[in-house]
Amino acid sequence: MTERLPVALPKAYRLLNHGPTVLVGSAHAGRRNVMAAAWSMPVDFSPPKIAVVIDRNTLTRELVDASGEFSLNVPARAIARETLAVGSISGRDTDKFAPGTGVRAFSGSQIGAPLIEGCLAWLECRVIPEPHNQERYDLFLGEVVAAWADPHAFRDGRWQFGTDETGATGATGESAGSGGSGGLRSLHYIAGGNFFETGEAFEVKP
Amino acid sequence: MTERLPVALPKAYRLLNHGPTVLVGSAHAGRRNVMAAAWSMPVDFSPPKIAVVIDRNTLTRELVDASGEFSLNVPARAIARETLAVGSISGRDTDKFAPGTGVRAFSGSQIGAPLIEGCLAWLECRVIPEPHNQERYDLFLGEVVAAWADPHAFRDGRWQFGTDETGATGATGESAGSGGSGGLRSLHYIAGGNFFETGEAFEVKP
Repeated sequence: MTERLPVALPKAYRLLNHGPTVLVGSAHAGRRNVMAAAWSMPVDFSPPKIAVVIDRNTLTRELVDASGEFSLNVPARAIARETLAVGSISGRDTDKFAPGTGVRAFSGSQIGAPLIEGCLAWLECRVIPEPHNQERYDLFLGEVVAAWADPHAFRDGRWQFGTDETGATGATGESAGSGGSGGLRSLHYIAGGNFFETGEAFEVKP
Repeated sequence: MTERLPVALPKAYRLLNHGPTVLVGSAHAGRRNVMAAAWSMPVDFSPPKIAVVIDRNTLTRELVDASGEFSLNVPARAIARETLAVGSISGRDTDKFAPGTGVRAFSGSQIGAPLIEGCLAWLECRVIPEPHNQERYDLFLGEVVAAWADPHAFRDGRWQFGTDETGATGATGESAGSGGSGGLRSLHYIAGGNFFETGEAFEVKP
């Protein structure tokens, strides 16, 4: 199982601040699902709130509408294939957690929606009911009620990948699964199966 | 002046889909401003709509409230320093476009808000009035009425950086301003002056 440690809620926005693609986990009345979403962002620091677009035609939408809860999971590059897959098929047609899919779930602490293995970070969210946004724009606001991260990827309030200050990137970044920073970088979806990996970290001095 | 070509509106979402930090340009009644925003995302494809958080205490908010317009600009790494600067000071205290700041504006085609030189792409947006969202969450929705990109960075509906399929990254990525993909990559803000550069592009086959 993926190692994880709690993230202090006032730092939870940092899990999404750089704009990664996320997986949305949902569950209600014995059914569960996961889908990919490129359209999410923080909207407040503390208590942390996020926004995410959940299309009205998805099973995820049905489960989130019914339960008032969802998880946002920040997938690692190592599961880019699974991220694309769960974003390309409907949970109405197939069990996305079936053996052989490579998609595995574990339980959160505050919500019933599944958290997804192989991710770098997890945000447990409760819907802030805004029916007009939901119906008109498929736009959901959520309060983050618990947050977790793989300490190899994020700890002490900071992402741990791409911190090489020499300006060189990628040398270890491509050895996915090696336990280096590589397979542990987050993803940024574009379109048509094309992603960017999160790149070099750098600091600008004011 | 930065070279730019129009982006077809149904492809405009791709300018923000990977979650870059943006600059928000605004103007009203002879005043203009620019600030940085890490919290923006697409919310619809066509007509393209976006969401962005604009804090109620900013001059940008005052100008956007008054004009009903704003620009979203996708800064290149080459202007990371300027991006941090315009996100750290208030337009009430200083003219962010003053000589010496390195921040230069040009005019859009559909709106009065300034577009920012040195960016990779530009979205001209009109506010979709949603007073409840604006007042309660500082959350603005906008319709994208025109979009532009530097063809060295984005053309034919695709980002042009990081398309090296060998797995090597960064070698040319650090020669900012060289005209290679490097200085032309977008930014992902974290906190405290820390950014990620947009990293390697890769494709997952379904």
